[in-house]
Amino acid sequence: MLNLKIEPLKKEFIDIAWKRLNNLTKPQGSLGRLEEIASRVVAIYEDAMPEIKKKAVLVFASDHGVTEENVSAYPKEVTAQMVFNFLRGGAGINVLARHAGADVLVVDVGVDYDFSEINGLIKKKVVKGSGNIAKGYALSRDDAIKSVDIGIELVRECYSRGYNLFATGEMGIGNTTVSSAVVSVLTNSDVEEVTGRGTGIDETTFKRKVEVIKRAIEINKPDASDPIDVLAKVGGPEIGAIAGVVLGCASLRVPVIVDGFISTAGALIAYCINPLVKDYIFASHNSVEKGHKKALDFMGLKPLLDLNLRLGEGTGATLAMTVIEASLKIYREMSTFEEAGVSKNDK
Amino acid sequence: MLNLKIEPLKKEFIDIAWKRLNNLTKPQGSLGRLEEIASRVVAIYEDAMPEIKKKAVLVFASDHGVTEENVSAYPKEVTAQMVFNFLRGGAGINVLARHAGADVLVVDVGVDYDFSEINGLIKKKVVKGSGNIAKGYALSRDDAIKSVDIGIELVRECYSRGYNLFATGEMGIGNTTVSSAVVSVLTNSDVEEVTGRGTGIDETTFKRKVEVIKRAIEINKPDASDPIDVLAKVGGPEIGAIAGVVLGCASLRVPVIVDGFISTAGALIAYCINPLVKDYIFASHNSVEKGHKKALDFMGLKPLLDLNLRLGEGTGATLAMTVIEASLKIYREMSTFEEAGVSKNDK
Repeated sequence: MLNLKIEPLKKEFIDIAWKRLNNLTKPQGSLGRLEEIASRVVAIYEDAMPEIKKKAVLVFASDHGVTEENVSAYPKEVTAQMVFNFLRGGAGINVLARHAGADVLVVDVGVDYDFSEINGLIKKKVVKGSGNIAKGYALSRDDAIKSVDIGIELVRECYSRGYNLFATGEMGIGNTTVSSAVVSVLTNSDVEEVTGRGTGIDETTFKRKVEVIKRAIEINKPDASDPIDVLAKVGGPEIGAIAGVVLGCASLRVPVIVDGFISTAGALIAYCINPLVKDYIFASHNSVEKGHKKALDFMGLKPLLDLNLRLGEGTGATLAMTVIEASLKIYREMSTFEEAGVSKNDK
Repeated sequence: MLNLKIEPLKKEFIDIAWKRLNNLTKPQGSLGRLEEIASRVVAIYEDAMPEIKKKAVLVFASDHGVTEENVSAYPKEVTAQMVFNFLRGGAGINVLARHAGADVLVVDVGVDYDFSEINGLIKKKVVKGSGNIAKGYALSRDDAIKSVDIGIELVRECYSRGYNLFATGEMGIGNTTVSSAVVSVLTNSDVEEVTGRGTGIDETTFKRKVEVIKRAIEINKPDASDPIDVLAKVGGPEIGAIAGVVLGCASLRVPVIVDGFISTAGALIAYCINPLVKDYIFASHNSVEKGHKKALDFMGLKPLLDLNLRLGEGTGATLAMTVIEASLKIYREMSTFEEAGVSKNDK
């Protein structure tokens, strides 16, 4: 896992992209971030005229022992119920993936439920619910590594089947709690600064959530210089799998669109393993969860959308997928000044 | 024109929308602005399960006498050249309209060029280039009214052909200059506060642009309490036509997505004619042109996207169209808690 070859983007391809962008029939730079996206996509693929073939949203589901501490607005049964909802196509992520023309791949990495063979579910259970971080480790170190490897392997397999644009997503009651713990440790921020209301908890529950995260960090003593240690002690399997997706995409030179707070905690683990992954990440949206901005700022990523989303599942990333695809279409399909016979600004 | 019947949204339909939104399998409000959009779309159509049928981007092209004052980075010939580019499908708006599944309708309302019969061009020329506002009126009062009527009529005709979602767009070298004049007068702002760099002018040209706008307002004395007077004296035909589109959409109860600075100047004219149009407008994006925010704030509208766009043509509005369509799909296609067998938050 740690030996994946990840390279920085090549200036040569960024220059190729801007040469074309600056010759399309519009004032230079007038399509703002769409042009920046296109230039980065060209450099990621190392292809002067790249094409998005198949798009996948990878949704990792897991339960979290910390829900015992009553830190969530929903009972933990909802994790498995939502997995069924994903498989039937009725959840928010299914709707937005259809809108974006992407396939939803649902992966069980740690749900505390015995799924029988169900069409569409990718069964990669690492644990049946992670450990309660208020009392001990979330995962053993081996299981943490296993969860990252699941993400890497899944991306590789999808890539071999023709997918070349990925969005991350997750489902797991309790996973904003562990994400806050991960982000607090890795960005060296106070717990209060990176803890939000999750799916909608009241003030009393919020205070308890902050205390639980503080206790988890105190008793487990995660080592901020070792991202796998942080993942194991206060993280969770879906966060590890998302880290793996980011690492896998960067090593294969394909863009990865990272969803909200939990997905960004996963991206942050990947970034702390290898900061070069940053060039391959598109931050999709600015979540209502306040730790999200902290994690994005730490990596120097700027989100594309700001629509007050806080659902997770990959919904923000999938919506951003349509913007990234639009950017590449601009790059590929707009006429140049010469082709269109339009006078260029001679300044 | 002034007698169009425009009604405020009915609370009854907003309530119907939120009842469904709050029963979909997600924490209440967790899809943020997507939910707000959907509730407004339901109330606009007065339909508990509305459907977007056909989508149109209406692109109005015109020349502006004020280009004589050398206020633009591009020669005025570019207006007609870009009309040909639109008709051939090579411009930014064509690419993004294909992405959004919308049709581009190109309308000549004032280009200083004699187009022969060209397939696809809607010929509604009001003037062959507006007057130079630094020396006199842009349009006669009759021509200003005529331009608004063109917008209203076009929307009606499209609506009768099945279009029920509209985006506004424009092309016209010099039209940020007249838009700044319109926005300055109607929002009672200093010219400096609402004037930007357009397609990319240098400091000297920028200073001249500000002086030209000040002179135009001084010599023409537009009456801020009479939006048609403002449109005639310091506006232009595409701005009038866009005002007409906004008025037409509101009267037909269909949503209208307003593009950047010039389109918003048109929407502002409509708003000053009848403030009820506001409920039917979706502000698409936050343009780099600084007068844009001033105009949006004046109407109390908050843009959906912030991608540093400054191209116009309807590009931002068309990209926002995909977000609005996504919102309605969320509303229509997500499962309710009952349908999915998911436990509800009992708090």
